[in-house]
Amino acid sequence: MKIDILTLFPEMFSNLEHSIVGRARDNGKVQIDFHNFRDNATNTQKHVDDYPYGGGQGMLLMPQPIFDTMDKIPHENARVILLDPAGRKFDQKFAEELSEEDHLVFICGHYEGYDERIKTLVTDEVSLGDFVLTGGEVATSVIIDATVRLIPEVLGKAVSHEEDSFSSGLLEYPQYTRPETYRDMKVPDVLMSGHHENIRKWRIKESLKKTLARRPDLLETYDFSEEEKIMLAEIKSEL
Amino acid sequence: MKIDILTLFPEMFSNLEHSIVGRARDNGKVQIDFHNFRDNATNTQKHVDDYPYGGGQGMLLMPQPIFDTMDKIPHENARVILLDPAGRKFDQKFAEELSEEDHLVFICGHYEGYDERIKTLVTDEVSLGDFVLTGGEVATSVIIDATVRLIPEVLGKAVSHEEDSFSSGLLEYPQYTRPETYRDMKVPDVLMSGHHENIRKWRIKESLKKTLARRPDLLETYDFSEEEKIMLAEIKSEL
Repeated sequence: MKIDILTLFPEMFSNLEHSIVGRARDNGKVQIDFHNFRDNATNTQKHVDDYPYGGGQGMLLMPQPIFDTMDKIPHENARVILLDPAGRKFDQKFAEELSEEDHLVFICGHYEGYDERIKTLVTDEVSLGDFVLTGGEVATSVIIDATVRLIPEVLGKAVSHEEDSFSSGLLEYPQYTRPETYRDMKVPDVLMSGHHENIRKWRIKESLKKTLARRPDLLETYDFSEEEKIMLAEIKSEL
Repeated sequence: MKIDILTLFPEMFSNLEHSIVGRARDNGKVQIDFHNFRDNATNTQKHVDDYPYGGGQGMLLMPQPIFDTMDKIPHENARVILLDPAGRKFDQKFAEELSEEDHLVFICGHYEGYDERIKTLVTDEVSLGDFVLTGGEVATSVIIDATVRLIPEVLGKAVSHEEDSFSSGLLEYPQYTRPETYRDMKVPDVLMSGHHENIRKWRIKESLKKTLARRPDLLETYDFSEEEKIMLAEIKSEL
């Protein structure tokens, strides 16, 4: 996968140099290039922003530096992504979709809004959530992190994504590792029993319980097995 | 504000050295300290993770390195935040809440799950959205970015957050800056008219239109003025 990032702050992306994404770059699974669009500003002061027409607070990214930078990056068939609070909400399904692409381009604004015409360059307006950031950089980092780990062979066997939360559609059951007792807190007996079938059932039930308590919306679209339907009825009757 | 980050990858946080957050640190508004909890692992190999009891894929963070690191960080009255897909969804209201705290502690997992007992250390389980990341580092970066910019005097006057999306409860209207015509795309006439009242009305109407089209859920809780109610009725009749 090829990723191009248009940003005024390429130095804010150290997270993409380490761990899974860093290794994917080292192994040639992903190539990431940064483009500081200030370099392409044609005005003598290299300004990239200006006041909004019609008045108002704040500054807006001008179209010229962004358009001219995009002209220099081949991006036929690329998904061109603009972070915007009004965009499509980023989620695991969206990450899976992006992980199948050959080429992603991210346009990161900073501090401020965009001239609306920049959106004509874009295939996807994306929102990370209902909150405001100082710029698109950290949001772009999140999207790349979530996407790159889904590219085949990027995660090793030990850290498969098949058991991720959201892959199953339910929240994850509680997990425990050594020691069996830590600061007076003990691992549930069932997990120490060696009884695989009981462990399997306990985990499904705990997942259902947690999802019902915290994210009942996920259950609305969940594809229940017969066993899970019965368990959910049990859980509800116990409440 | 004091921020402590427990992480195996302190080098992934370069975003917190630049721009608004970097400046807030330079100005003493925010102090951020990193704690690599591997340093506190008591086993000779400095392992921080182990296999889950009851079987299953992946590794889990062990309680010992996290608990012992927390013992070394004074954290009375701190909000202790664990990134978890089952946590409370992070949003602007949550960012505002955190921005009023004196002390935040973030526990970043990496690759894998946590031993459930770690959650006894935590005041807030937080989810950035319905997607899976390689670790808590990038999510923590996002939360800190969204929070620190709301601390009084951190944003300069020119980049006030009073006109942010979500502060008003509506999505933002389209904005334009120079030049008036760029690559045959022209700024809407009303913004060039100098007629402040028409511009004000146009902007409210465009905000309502966009919110209705893309995020009708925001309108359900929005506190409409009389003028906005009439405009929304107009927009709906025009559709």
